[in-house]
Amino acid sequence: MLTPAAIDELSTFALRLADAAAEVTLPHFRSGLDVDNKRGNFAFDPVTAADRDAEQAIRTLIGKHYPTHGIFGEEHGREAGSSPLHWVIDPIDGTRSFISGVPLWGTLIALNDGARPVIGIMDQPYIGERFIGRPGSSELISRHGRRTLRTSRCTRLEDALLGNTDPAMFREEAARAAFREVSSRVKLRRFGGDCYFYCLLAAGTLDLVIESSLQPYDVQALIPIIENAGGIVTSWTGTDAQMGGHVVAAATPELHAAALEILSKAV
Amino acid sequence: MLTPAAIDELSTFALRLADAAAEVTLPHFRSGLDVDNKRGNFAFDPVTAADRDAEQAIRTLIGKHYPTHGIFGEEHGREAGSSPLHWVIDPIDGTRSFISGVPLWGTLIALNDGARPVIGIMDQPYIGERFIGRPGSSELISRHGRRTLRTSRCTRLEDALLGNTDPAMFREEAARAAFREVSSRVKLRRFGGDCYFYCLLAAGTLDLVIESSLQPYDVQALIPIIENAGGIVTSWTGTDAQMGGHVVAAATPELHAAALEILSKAV
Repeated sequence: MLTPAAIDELSTFALRLADAAAEVTLPHFRSGLDVDNKRGNFAFDPVTAADRDAEQAIRTLIGKHYPTHGIFGEEHGREAGSSPLHWVIDPIDGTRSFISGVPLWGTLIALNDGARPVIGIMDQPYIGERFIGRPGSSELISRHGRRTLRTSRCTRLEDALLGNTDPAMFREEAARAAFREVSSRVKLRRFGGDCYFYCLLAAGTLDLVIESSLQPYDVQALIPIIENAGGIVTSWTGTDAQMGGHVVAAATPELHAAALEILSKAV
Repeated sequence: MLTPAAIDELSTFALRLADAAAEVTLPHFRSGLDVDNKRGNFAFDPVTAADRDAEQAIRTLIGKHYPTHGIFGEEHGREAGSSPLHWVIDPIDGTRSFISGVPLWGTLIALNDGARPVIGIMDQPYIGERFIGRPGSSELISRHGRRTLRTSRCTRLEDALLGNTDPAMFREEAARAAFREVSSRVKLRRFGGDCYFYCLLAAGTLDLVIESSLQPYDVQALIPIIENAGGIVTSWTGTDAQMGGHVVAAATPELHAAALEILSKAV
């Protein structure tokens, strides 16, 4: 268990990591950057120099200030530490948004205590928004002010606003069918969000986010943001979401249960 | 034909209209506003007090400063003027983004000279971005600076980044099939953009936007932004897009022709 003082110190450090990443990523955003195709799955997964260099900047800072901590990042893989504490990072979540010029990508930084992610940051430097989750608080800091995050009270699918990045992420027909069923019952559906949608769920403007094919670094930073705002995030069968895969986030236990009733049959 | 001096004056006035709209819309964004269902088509089309009041603020300013100009707005309909000049406005394009907390909605303001929209503004006050198209120039003004907009040089579907708000907007099966065909050939596809995607096309980060079910006030402000950045925007058969309906916007004539070859068969 980390003490409140340790949480304070590590949260402040996590914000320094986000600053360091933003210095690298922001000059590349909408600058006509080169894109190369990293791997064949999910149709197209571009990775940029910004992505790799931002992760390197984060790793360098962690190595300097907390050399015992482990690191797991999208670009440079896993680096074990002597401490159970480890950082799980995705310098640019939503690389397709990034290369399309859409400012809904984010830098994801989680601190995992060996059991669960305890501090999470989603930083969107172009808009100038920073979502921070830590034990007992979830906040949005932006040029419009500082705001405590709280999920909505939505309990029924029929009243829910649903977010998803792209339904093409569901590779199996059963998952596609389950998503279509939930989709057809909700009040409103929005595509295109990546990490940003989970933060809007924490902020209470979306009620439900359903995705699949996530990696641990796609979701760990979001867990403290959602949970400390009152929301729930699990796998489609209700188990711990920190390893990624099929993920569902909901504003309330009732809404989560209603979604799980449909989704759990598909996996 | 408007003189350059008249264009200057009216562009400055159009920015005042955007300021007036932002004063009304911004306090409602992410504030837990009430939503009512305006009409039954396209599943769900919420309209808010912000939308109606922002249009009223714009109409009041036009009536005071240019009483001979006509007005056509989403919320309060058509008001004829004695001048051929008329304003075509949508105070919140992307109301579903607005109520979901996604900052990709915009205030659309066009000045039409009786034949074509000649000045167009897309204002996104939460991010603090203002896209402005007028004869001979297309610009983005934001807190990151002032930038001349220029479409990409993409000429082939296979290299194109495609944007669309939600494929559910295609009501006829032929249109859905045509969209799927284009979709399957492009390099990357993003959903969820509303007016914002057309501005990214002008900025050169998206290459192609394909939509349907648009109203005149959904598209007129975007035409000067796209055309003065070097892009092309027409109906799916290549005719004038200013009345809305099925719309395709492309970065280059070659890419536009390639998309039209598929889309024109569907309408």
